[in-house]
Amino acid sequence: MKLASLKAEGRDGSLAVVSRDLTRATLARAIAPTLQHALDNWSDAEPRLRALAAELELRAIPDFRFHEHDALSPLPRAYQWLDGSAYVNHVELVRKARGAEMPERFWTDPLMYQGGSDSFLAPRAPMPLANEAWGLDFEGEVAVITGDVATGASAAAAKSAIALVMLANDVSLRNLIPDELAKGFGFVQSKPSSAFSPVAVTPDELGPAWDGRRVHLPLLVSLNGRPFGLADAGLDMTFDFPALIAHAAKTRPLCAGTIIGSGTVSNRDAKGGPGRPVGQGGRGYSCLAELRTFEILTEGAVKTPFLRSGDCVRIEMKDFDGQSIFGAIEQTVHPSAS
Amino acid sequence: MKLASLKAEGRDGSLAVVSRDLTRATLARAIAPTLQHALDNWSDAEPRLRALAAELELRAIPDFRFHEHDALSPLPRAYQWLDGSAYVNHVELVRKARGAEMPERFWTDPLMYQGGSDSFLAPRAPMPLANEAWGLDFEGEVAVITGDVATGASAAAAKSAIALVMLANDVSLRNLIPDELAKGFGFVQSKPSSAFSPVAVTPDELGPAWDGRRVHLPLLVSLNGRPFGLADAGLDMTFDFPALIAHAAKTRPLCAGTIIGSGTVSNRDAKGGPGRPVGQGGRGYSCLAELRTFEILTEGAVKTPFLRSGDCVRIEMKDFDGQSIFGAIEQTVHPSAS
Repeated sequence: MKLASLKAEGRDGSLAVVSRDLTRATLARAIAPTLQHALDNWSDAEPRLRALAAELELRAIPDFRFHEHDALSPLPRAYQWLDGSAYVNHVELVRKARGAEMPERFWTDPLMYQGGSDSFLAPRAPMPLANEAWGLDFEGEVAVITGDVATGASAAAAKSAIALVMLANDVSLRNLIPDELAKGFGFVQSKPSSAFSPVAVTPDELGPAWDGRRVHLPLLVSLNGRPFGLADAGLDMTFDFPALIAHAAKTRPLCAGTIIGSGTVSNRDAKGGPGRPVGQGGRGYSCLAELRTFEILTEGAVKTPFLRSGDCVRIEMKDFDGQSIFGAIEQTVHPSAS
Repeated sequence: MKLASLKAEGRDGSLAVVSRDLTRATLARAIAPTLQHALDNWSDAEPRLRALAAELELRAIPDFRFHEHDALSPLPRAYQWLDGSAYVNHVELVRKARGAEMPERFWTDPLMYQGGSDSFLAPRAPMPLANEAWGLDFEGEVAVITGDVATGASAAAAKSAIALVMLANDVSLRNLIPDELAKGFGFVQSKPSSAFSPVAVTPDELGPAWDGRRVHLPLLVSLNGRPFGLADAGLDMTFDFPALIAHAAKTRPLCAGTIIGSGTVSNRDAKGGPGRPVGQGGRGYSCLAELRTFEILTEGAVKTPFLRSGDCVRIEMKDFDGQSIFGAIEQTVHPSAS
């Protein structure tokens, strides 16, 4: 089952069921007006939404053309957005570029931050940027939406709480990060609004690419129309989604509709070092910061600037048949007034 | 105008207007089913809610008895909870107890963290505690709820976005904090669900105690029925609410219903040092960590333990006539299964 939140009056969009090939949709209003509403009553809503999705596939009900640019993020705003750094390779690389050592315990104790969840960007909306000196970067990620999770949930309970899977662009202001991290209180100014893929899908839509804990497919990232990354989201994910969810729920419950991000998808090189750029036969990167680190490590200096006005980032994932699973996040940088 | 969210079916309670003396209430269902709904449409809803409140004061409409223990937190869950550390005195003291130096810039650059907002405790609900070794503490705070705030909003624009004021108990697990802060990503496990006062009030309800930026009244904190703190929330607040809101909105918009906390209300001693306990003629503290620091600094060792099963914390604020403004947060520590 694939779900989208279509632009509508109100702040949360209108819940729609979307066909597997992303060409057609039907509103789910009679079941739940919004995705959060469905998640709040998931045990009741899920089977009814699945029945609607089956009818849509069979063309047994009226439908309309689905356009990805009509979609908001599946949860246009959420009660919780917790972003892990499950690909520890990414953390190690980005720290290396800042000249900072990564503590050994980051391989066993997940890094995770509480992100702003009140105003997500639509997947085709511009990335606003007031100041190029802030160092705008994208981060391509996989994310899951959970049902309710009890305090102290085991990894097994966490696994069964995964309701939906989607992609994320975790927008980052790299040059504001060091000062905020030094304060110890996490990201506030350095992580503006993120965006998520046009549709969120139930895990079964991923077929054998979903093992219950990770998505074993490449995350396709392009920059200004050129391939930039195709890192395999199933590789090098040190902490899987159940582990991230259990970490988050250690001391408190998680409300249905909690989004848990994987952190930037990142693969090592076969030799264990940083991966090579796509143009050099590597799997590339899911953010600019990693390429910049590679440049520092191999060429002694950064060549690639952070995002500038007009730059366009596309993040997508395709199934074994080449069909887009989640639709594409495609965002262009726009200067903003303030 | 005073607003509460009463226990009801659904996760967000039923919005009620409460009389000034907190004895009577009426449901606001015809205007907005929930407080978030009212905030989403505040320019339309506010005048209608105020008209209802005026009728309630005049006893011109049917009402019912208001019981504080029937109230959820005004926003039982929110899209955003950002907690500042505006009383820098508190930060300096708590760090001193950990043997950590406070950077000088904390006096000019606000500390703020993105808190979990998906599952707040009700103001009379137990504080669940799975493990006493985690070091459970309360933090008495003042908080505001904002309307929409644009990216880059000035302090003046931030000031006019303050819709409601309330009190908070920012529950903290002190012994989990050092490890999380060392990771730099802020609080996830060390800040479980917070609670807010039974009612949230429009700033005009505070009369001359509200100067548009701070609340000039003592925050009354008691522990197991004994006075523990009466720090003046208008004193030593280095960053006022408009400054905190503008800090949060520097690089991103804030959605209506954003909660901004003051951080633990904390006064210095007249001589500039840490304040003295209530029992020694001082203004006391709004959290245990400060008393423990005082004990270390004056007696060389901690005498006061963190919260234990059965301990009861009460947080309240009274107007110049002794009338409770927000109702009381009153929470007892309960052992929890996991």
